Formats: sequence, structure tokens, C-alpha cells
Amino acid sequence: MIRVKQALTIILKSIRPLGREQVDLSNGLDRIISFDVRAKCKLPPFDNSAMDGYALRAKDTKGASKVEPRVLQVIEDVPAGYTAKNKIRDNQAIRIMTGAAFPSGADSVVMVEFTKRVKRNKKSYPEEVEIYKETKLSENVRRAGEDVKKGQRVLSRGCILRPQELGMLAALGINRIDVAKRPRVGILATGDELVPVQGKLGKGKIRNSNSFILRAQISKCGGIPIDLGIARDKRRELRSKITTGLKKKLDLLLVLGGISVGDYDLVKDVLFELGMKMKFWRVAMRPGKPLAFGFIKGIPVFGLPGNPVSSTISFEEFVRPALLKMQGAKNLFRPRVWATLTEDLQKKKNLRYFIRAKVKIKNGKFYVSSTGAQGSGIINSLVLADGIIVAPEGLELLKQGQMISVQLLRQGYDGGVI
Amino acid sequence: MIRVKQALTIILKSIRPLGREQVDLSNGLDRIISFDVRAKCKLPPFDNSAMDGYALRAKDTKGASKVEPRVLQVIEDVPAGYTAKNKIRDNQAIRIMTGAAFPSGADSVVMVEFTKRVKRNKKSYPEEVEIYKETKLSENVRRAGEDVKKGQRVLSRGCILRPQELGMLAALGINRIDVAKRPRVGILATGDELVPVQGKLGKGKIRNSNSFILRAQISKCGGIPIDLGIARDKRRELRSKITTGLKKKLDLLLVLGGISVGDYDLVKDVLFELGMKMKFWRVAMRPGKPLAFGFIKGIPVFGLPGNPVSSTISFEEFVRPALLKMQGAKNLFRPRVWATLTEDLQKKKNLRYFIRAKVKIKNGKFYVSSTGAQGSGIINSLVLADGIIVAPEGLELLKQGQMISVQLLRQGYDGGVI
Repeated sequence: MIRVKQALTIILKSIRPLGREQVDLSNGLDRIISFDVRAKCKLPPFDNSAMDGYALRAKDTKGASKVEPRVLQVIEDVPAGYTAKNKIRDNQAIRIMTGAAFPSGADSVVMVEFTKRVKRNKKSYPEEVEIYKETKLSENVRRAGEDVKKGQRVLSRGCILRPQELGMLAALGINRIDVAKRPRVGILATGDELVPVQGKLGKGKIRNSNSFILRAQISKCGGIPIDLGIARDKRRELRSKITTGLKKKLDLLLVLGGISVGDYDLVKDVLFELGMKMKFWRVAMRPGKPLAFGFIKGIPVFGLPGNPVSSTISFEEFVRPALLKMQGAKNLFRPRVWATLTEDLQKKKNLRYFIRAKVKIKNGKFYVSSTGAQGSGIINSLVLADGIIVAPEGLELLKQGQMISVQLLRQGYDGGVI
Repeated sequence: MIRVKQALTIILKSIRPLGREQVDLSNGLDRIISFDVRAKCKLPPFDNSAMDGYALRAKDTKGASKVEPRVLQVIEDVPAGYTAKNKIRDNQAIRIMTGAAFPSGADSVVMVEFTKRVKRNKKSYPEEVEIYKETKLSENVRRAGEDVKKGQRVLSRGCILRPQELGMLAALGINRIDVAKRPRVGILATGDELVPVQGKLGKGKIRNSNSFILRAQISKCGGIPIDLGIARDKRRELRSKITTGLKKKLDLLLVLGGISVGDYDLVKDVLFELGMKMKFWRVAMRPGKPLAFGFIKGIPVFGLPGNPVSSTISFEEFVRPALLKMQGAKNLFRPRVWATLTEDLQKKKNLRYFIRAKVKIKNGKFYVSSTGAQGSGIINSLVLADGIIVAPEGLELLKQGQMISVQLLRQGYDGGVI
């Protein structure tokens, strides 16, 4: 039996990043980029107006006010998307729209709200405009490159593409991107007690909820789940289903159940028969102790415990970081915060506990309590969980009021505090 | 010009939830459930063993130890998925695996680690087992219903389906579920300055990054983005593209750009021509002031500002809650925390500022600073953002060291602190 930290080190040391593939930017959301993106052009690409108004020379607005307006010649009108034909000279102005290229000779823009066009007849320039406000040099001008300079690194490899990262790539004209391949992850559930979700529940049977949870967990961290079904506790069936699974170009295999010390826990035997190089078996944690990790023909294999809570937590703590490492992600772990524990919790000294927990924020501080019953069959402990208390080895009692580390589980719009 | 809070109230009051649709559980991830789920059966469905070991009567283990074992008759072996044929009587035990139905007559399970089978010959029961440890009543027994009672509400409508919620539904045998329909959201970009991402960048032109960001933002909160392309600043083209868009069974329409006070900002005119009932136009905020909201033929329409930062923030603050309300989500808003500001920030008194911000956690406390330049064209301010500082109306100076409210943007594994 090894410690959690040691198990994680062994896993991450032996997992290699997969290759990359090219996708269209429109398919890039949530993918992990596998190269440093440097700008091949400036953003914005040219000086442009930040406001609708008049481009002019600041010195020509000196002393301008509502009472004593300055009157300038309007020599041209430039909408966004177009450029001025003329250069501005003293006492001249060009009507300009937000985003329109900034005319040469000008040094600032006065907002249209502080002006009044005196004559208006586009057929015969120059016209006149009254200016009611002084401008400062460069006022309301967006300079070329003020967002991104040419050659600047705008994204680093290993970062995940959110909407705004896609926007940056789009603005730079990058329409095809190299992203990490999505790992193909096989899931084989085992056990005579399992029936499919839609199946009839005979005596002594339960529904195979684990595969559902794992499929979704795999998707949520970028993997492609490949369901290999349920294998009965028969040596031949196990061997055949694992062999078939391994042929499906898997990058990782999860085998669920059957690696405890029970007489019918054949999985470990069969894995060994198939040439499994076991890196470890059994981790000093609760839930999830009977966890196995190794390789068959170079493919990483996790033997996960059969109880839904144990398998979900084992995935969270070990498989998820492995899948993210395969994708070259910069950050392999859930966000962690320190929170005040609002109840006493007992544990076994030699094990690290992963306690499903409710998390609240009051006055900017985190408070945490367990979700209640923590048995490895209590699926509700997962449903109620906003986070996971990481209760370290060496402690037997966690005291109400003490600070404790919590992994935050909820994401985005799913109603959690985080 | 109205306040942010008022704008949001008007939007949310006038948005109606869409209908529901039925999907397979395997397509349920990230969908919002539209009914309260009550358990039609208990979980676990029957008493079962939490450990591999021997089911027995606790009183028969009294005083048992390694030195003075108690010896019991083994009358049967029961793997997981099967049920015992016999009832346990005094001084009898049944070999039982984790998850196997608990035999009648027994009251506890002793772990296999604390036993030794004396004789072993499955063909002739009874055999014998030495027990080295006392058990307590109900020890290592999982009672039927200890996870979920029959009739118990396990999920509430409006909650989002994470992996574990899918697991709960699977365990209960619920394979088809009612979820909120995904809103169909049209995106029409406008402006002579825009070229598609893969297009050539002519003089005075920029790439249409906005539509990319919005498509991804829509996907991330459950909507289906429908790209209506780019309309030039021509009255006829605008009218035709909006009319075509509205025919695509949209639940919401986003029109980007062209609703400021510029001479070429035709969008507002055209929306009015098409019968837009404007609820408001212009919100006291930065970025994003020229925001319009109304209805055309009952379809909600947002006129979003044309600058990428403004449109992204307007989406975050107004469109996202609207889309989540359409889906009946319990929680419409990003998680918010209080953080210590690590720099002075200036603002206009009458506007609410949404300042793109870097967020750090140190010793369990949040610290926040702006991402730097906050111009509405600075896409990098979005790329660098872990969150958004909400700087309220009425303040002109935010002081270093003060507490400030921050919306957290990062999700899941994307490398943020949260």
C-alpha cells in the first residue's frame, strides 16, 4: 500500500503526452493548444478612432468651449472600414467613426457629442464644424499594436481555449490550430451484480451507474470515452473483453471492480495474464483504496474500485491528471482553497481521506462541511458535493474551526459557489 | 441611459423559459434538468455487504481474537450479484463479497482480513472459519435505502447535470430525462470594416473576432449558436439578413455593432423598421454602454456593441443570464467572491465598470488586480482575465487594499485559480 502522493508521482512520471492534431478554430473550444502562439501582425492593425467624432490637431481645439467654440474645416467623412484620402492640416478636421483608420496629420479625436456640424453638404467640401471641447494629444486614438505587438506571445502551449482565446486567434487571422489529441479512454465494468441502466433489476443486482459517471468525467477533461460494456466475473469473458478493448486504439484503459481481495476478484489475475506491468496496487486512501495502475503493451491501465463513489474519486484524483497530462495541459489539478471546517470529522490515521463536502462562501471566506454519510456506496455524497475535503495522513480528528484544504468541483453555471 | 441592475431586471422579467425535450441519459451531460427527480426505488436496493468477508451474528464473535479465535460453520459462499440460499443461524457464517446481498439471519460482516478458512472444499458444506475479531451489530452492512429512500427527491429542476448527477439517474434506472431545450441564438455581425477570419485584411479592415467569441460563449452556457454572417452597413443588406435570421426558429438574436450614435450606425433604424419594441438602449456601464434590448415579433433581440471587449462583457452580464433563464437554470450568475484589490483604479462616477482582472489566492484569500489596459479594443484584457471586477456606480476611486466583488470566469481545468 502506497501513499496518495507517491501514487500520483508514479502515474504522472510514466504518462507521456499524446501527439497533436490540427483543427479549425471553430472546433477549438475547450481544446488544449499545443504551441506558443506568437502574433504575426499587430492588433489593432492600424491607428484608429476609439469614438465617433472628428479627427483633428489638438492645438486647434485650445480654449474651445460651448461659449467659445473653435470652428474647423471638415475636409472628409470616413466610416469604419475605410481610410481617409486627405491629410489633415492646421484648422482642419475629418469626420470619423469608431474603428475607422486614423487620418494622417491628425493627433486626436473629439467626440461627436462635443461638436456641431455647421453646414452639411457632402457634395462640396470643405464644410464647417464647431468644436466645444479641448482635446489632448492622442485622445480617443487607439494606436496600432496597443493590444498586441508583432511577435508578442499571446497564448502559451498547454492553455485551454476559452471563448476569448478563440477571439484572439480569430483577430490574428489564425484559422487552423494545433491542439493536443483527445485521449481515447476505454471503460470496462466488471461484475456479475451489474445490469445496464435500462435493464431489469433482478435479485442481488444493481445498475451500472459507474460507467455513466466515468464517461462524463472523461468528456469533461477532454477525453473520448469508449464504453466496452460489462464483463461477467468469468476469466475467459474478462480476458476477451480486455483484449478487444485494447485493440480499439486506446490511450488509456479503465477496468472497474474486481481488484480487491475477494475470491471472485479475477481482474487482477487476468491483467497479469495479459502482461500487465503493475506499478502499484492499493493506495492509502478512503474511498478508493483498491486502486491499481500499470501498463499492458505500453497502454496505461487503471484498475478502479467497483463502488461508484470510490471509482469517481479515484478518477478525480488520479485519472483526470493523467488525461490532462496526456494533453499537455499546464494545469493538471482542480482549484484548491483553504476553508474553515464547520464540524468535527474523524478518520483513520494512516489513510488520506477525500471527504465529499458542501462549500459555502460567507463574507469572502470559505466554509466547508461533509455531505453527511461517506460510505463508498453513497452516490448522494457525490451529488451533494461542491468540493472534496483533502484530509491528510497523520490526523485522526479534524476539529471544527480548523482550516482545511478543499478541491472545488463545481464549474461554470452549475449553481455552485464556485 | 439606465443602470446595469435595472437593465438586468428588465431582461430577466421579459425572458420566458423555453420548453423541455426528452434525451437519453447518455446525452444528458451539462444539460439542465427540468423536473424534480424523485426516487422510485431505494438505493442501494437491498441490504448488502460493504466488505469482502463473512456474514454472521455479532454475538458469535464475542471475545474473538488472534489468540482465541471463534470457530464458525461456513454454510455457503455468495459472490456479488447473487443471494444466499440459506438463512444464518447461531454459530454459522456465510462467505460474502462486497456488494453481495446480505443473508437473512446475519447482523454483521467481519472482514476477510480477520478470518482464516480452516477447511475448504466447496463440494461439502459446512466448512469452518476462524474469526479473529469481534464485530458490532450492523458492522460492514450497507442498509437498503441508506443512500436514497423511496420517494426521496434526489435532484431539483434547474440543476445542471454533472457526471455524478448522471450516475444517480443511472443508479435509479432513469434512462430518459426531461431537460430544458437549448436556445437557438442567431449572431449577426455588422460593419463595413469586418472581414472573415480566413479573409484577406484590406486597408482599414479588421477580422471578425466577435462572432467567434460569441459562438463559444453561447455554447458554454447551453445555447446553440447560429452564425448569420456579416452584414455591410447598407440598409437593405441589414434588413434582409435580420429577416432571414429571424426565420431560422431563433429563440434569441444578437446583432453586433452599429447601435452607437455614429452616422453609419444604421442597425437601430433597421431594427425599428422591422418592428423592434425597444425595452432600453444604452446602459450606464463600461465597457458596453451602447447596449440595446427589445423584441421583434416576440423574439428577444440584443444589440451588442461592436468592440470585442464590449460585446464579450455585455454577453457575460446580460445575455448569459437570459439564456440560462430560458433553460430554467436555478443559478443564472457566475460565482462571485470578495477579493482584496492590489492597486488603485480610477473610474467615472456614474458608470459601473467591469474590469478584466487577474485573480490570485494566497493563504486562502483572494487578491485581484486589473489585467492592465482596459480599452474596449484590448482583446488581451479578456485573454488575461481570471475574473471581472464589478466596480459599482458612485465610486470614482477604488483604493489599493479595499475589498471588491469579483466574478470568477475560469472553469474546470483551464488553469485558473478557480
